Amino acid sequence: MKKFLIATTALALTAGAAAAEVKVSGDGRMGIYYDGNDAQFSSRLRAKFTMTGETDGGLAFGGSFRVDQEDEIGNRASNGTAGSVYISGAFGKLEMGDVVSASEAAIGDLAGVGYGPITSYNEWNFLTADGNNINQGPNILYSYSTGALDLYASMSDGAGTGVDVAYSLAAAYSMGDYSVSLGYADDGLTTEIGLGGSATFGAVTVKAAYFDYNDSPSYEKAYGLSAVYKANALSVSGYYNTYEDLAGSNWDTFGVGAAYDLGGGATLAGGIVDSDFAADTVADFGIKFSF
Amino acid sequence: MKKFLIATTALALTAGAAAAEVKVSGDGRMGIYYDGNDAQFSSRLRAKFTMTGETDGGLAFGGSFRVDQEDEIGNRASNGTAGSVYISGAFGKLEMGDVVSASEAAIGDLAGVGYGPITSYNEWNFLTADGNNINQGPNILYSYSTGALDLYASMSDGAGTGVDVAYSLAAAYSMGDYSVSLGYADDGLTTEIGLGGSATFGAVTVKAAYFDYNDSPSYEKAYGLSAVYKANALSVSGYYNTYEDLAGSNWDTFGVGAAYDLGGGATLAGGIVDSDFAADTVADFGIKFSF
Amino acid sequence: MKKFLIATTALALTAGAAAAEVKVSGDGRMGIYYDGNDAQFSSRLRAKFTMTGETDGGLAFGGSFRVDQEDEIGNRASNGTAGSVYISGAFGKLEMGDVVSASEAAIGDLAGVGYGPITSYNEWNFLTADGNNINQGPNILYSYSTGALDLYASMSDGAGTGVDVAYSLAAAYSMGDYSVSLGYADDGLTTEIGLGGSATFGAVTVKAAYFDYNDSPSYEKAYGLSAVYKANALSVSGYYNTYEDLAGSNWDTFGVGAAYDLGGGATLAGGIVDSDFAADTVADFGIKFSF
Repeated sequence: MKKFLIATTALALTAGAAAAEVKVSGDGRMGIYYDGNDAQFSSRLRAKFTMTGETDGGLAFGGSFRVDQEDEIGNRASNGTAGSVYISGAFGKLEMGDVVSASEAAIGDLAGVGYGPITSYNEWNFLTADGNNINQGPNILYSYSTGALDLYASMSDGAGTGVDVAYSLAAAYSMGDYSVSLGYADDGLTTEIGLGGSATFGAVTVKAAYFDYNDSPSYEKAYGLSAVYKANALSVSGYYNTYEDLAGSNWDTFGVGAAYDLGGGATLAGGIVDSDFAADTVADFGIKFSF
Repeated sequence: MKKFLIATTALALTAGAAAAEVKVSGDGRMGIYYDGNDAQFSSRLRAKFTMTGETDGGLAFGGSFRVDQEDEIGNRASNGTAGSVYISGAFGKLEMGDVVSASEAAIGDLAGVGYGPITSYNEWNFLTADGNNINQGPNILYSYSTGALDLYASMSDGAGTGVDVAYSLAAAYSMGDYSVSLGYADDGLTTEIGLGGSATFGAVTVKAAYFDYNDSPSYEKAYGLSAVYKANALSVSGYYNTYEDLAGSNWDTFGVGAAYDLGGGATLAGGIVDSDFAADTVADFGIKFSF
Repeated sequence: MKKFLIATTALALTAGAAAAEVKVSGDGRMGIYYDGNDAQFSSRLRAKFTMTGETDGGLAFGGSFRVDQEDEIGNRASNGTAGSVYISGAFGKLEMGDVVSASEAAIGDLAGVGYGPITSYNEWNFLTADGNNINQGPNILYSYSTGALDLYASMSDGAGTGVDVAYSLAAAYSMGDYSVSLGYADDGLTTEIGLGGSATFGAVTVKAAYFDYNDSPSYEKAYGLSAVYKANALSVSGYYNTYEDLAGSNWDTFGVGAAYDLGGGATLAGGIVDSDFAADTVADFGIKFSF
């Protein structure tokens, strides 16, 4: 996403320190969403603040949140339960707020399809950085990069009656067109081991991941694969994922879609998803904007 | 309203595409509002994001919403029930979100009076683009201009149990100081035929409208007229409207007011409204700001 | 706090009038908060709009609010119960919205300690500008400066059933390194007389205040003192305040802390507070950011 400079010029800054600034960017979308029963219009518009600064000693700091992340009770950038702030330097980057877990940072999601309404089906159910104590407050995510290796650690503070600290440790290693990632997470009830990998063969990028859960209330394991083919402005994507529940049954999801970059921040996109988590096949088609 | 450039400079845009940007503008007001019983202070301040972009092929896209439109449950720019997004080109403009109906776009409201708190009395009760299915999600408004003629069409998606699609078709024709407009709307329960016109005679602009309803739960018809006289920074306004209810009784509203443009975005304004919809005469006096 | 220019350039402004503009600034913090039982992560990020303009006649106008002040039901910049707008000129400054009382404007709070979570303990319980009619709507604050003297007056509109107007009158006088302030407030139930003073002796600034209440449901009197020592980027602060309740018991609070300015808008800060209003000693340590 392109970011646009809103503002700058701190007139009286100490020599050597970079000017702190607030950027505003935006994203939107409009189109048709078929929810399995009805074809519906579906649109949205959001604005995001990205703030950056630098101390006299060369530490970078900043944070970001969207206007719609200051809206919900118990989920607000102004109390650390949405958006995040960070400080970074030679020691790495320390981020606090509504951060992802180390495993999610390292492994990430499969490629999705569609212009928006059906995009969530490709996302993994990572144990959250909050643990089993949702929205208790901010969590931390620490990242450190050295050469081809990215290391991540995240934790909740575990504050509250009888709540364990949730934590996660993960690493990702990249070499040219290949990358692998490994993550471990413990939310106080459930543990998750995740393994991810991606590879680019010419115009095709393939991602895969495998998760094994212990003491999960829902699943034994999950795994899946996505592939994206790019040819100039066009990209065609497909994915498959499955969750094996405690009774040994599999919950499958298939998605296929295509996107065409119109330039200037606009992308035409559509997709179809058939999932055991939805009563019927869902589909969408529309335009995504970034400002 | 003046708009102010917040942000620009997309560094890596494709040649030919205009840089996407996010502008922030604002509006405010402060003054005294007499609600019929008490004189109250009444003020507000709002900020608005206006986003614009252009595809490589020359289609314009964008959208806008205010910070206070991301606040209410069930009425949010981030789910299409407030604000709107659009794409436009030679084919016209297609807008999705919390849009007005075609009739409202073509006919519009009479001139109002006051600095803010009493401004709603001049607004018509247009059948909404949502139909009788308020805030089900975004609706669409299509506009096309050719010479002196503006054409409009709007519709809801009708998604939901037993809900009809609401739609509206309208046209407006302008020639010099005169314009006429005609609109039809059907919200699934009620139909509305509206006729509007405006004319400018030197310093005086007169607007009038007439509405006829079928199967409305409230009204048989409505009509009214407003006049605005402008002399340099001063403008004096007055309006009358009436709703004839199902029993044949008329609900009348009269409003008079004046405004003085102080320059730089500030306007001194005040007004008095006597309406059968309010227990007592209401009035306001204050300053409006635009930033 | 540094303010950053977002936006400017009203292309068609009348000659002589300054361009209206909207600035966006931000503030954030991250760190550890010990609440007496648990050590918790505590972070936040906020964005603020500051709008300014000038009439052709040279009156300044504007206002400000934060995104998180457009969030709560009954506490919104868009209805005057958060943020504020103003107009100012040779006659002084008239502000409307969620303003402080005249006493609070003149006397202010003692110096606080910590990076954020424990900062509220140093704040006085000023009778609010709303009186005993919280969030009924906007209030007004009038300020006038002449030489070393600052005069303040505030009032609510008292609208509502059986509610008295709340008002406050105050003055502050500065001469070099010394200042004194005096305020009177009446919220319709309780009256408050406040006396404040501050003095700077080289690197040390001392503030003190005394309050006497009549018909307060809680307190007879309150008083306290703070001292801040500054040496280059370092500042060390301490304060003591006490409230004498209706039974003659004292509710004491002690706070000590230190802050180190890292430059560029970042400040390292921490503090410890021991208060009869909290079950246990509380403490925090973290970084504050301004953008």
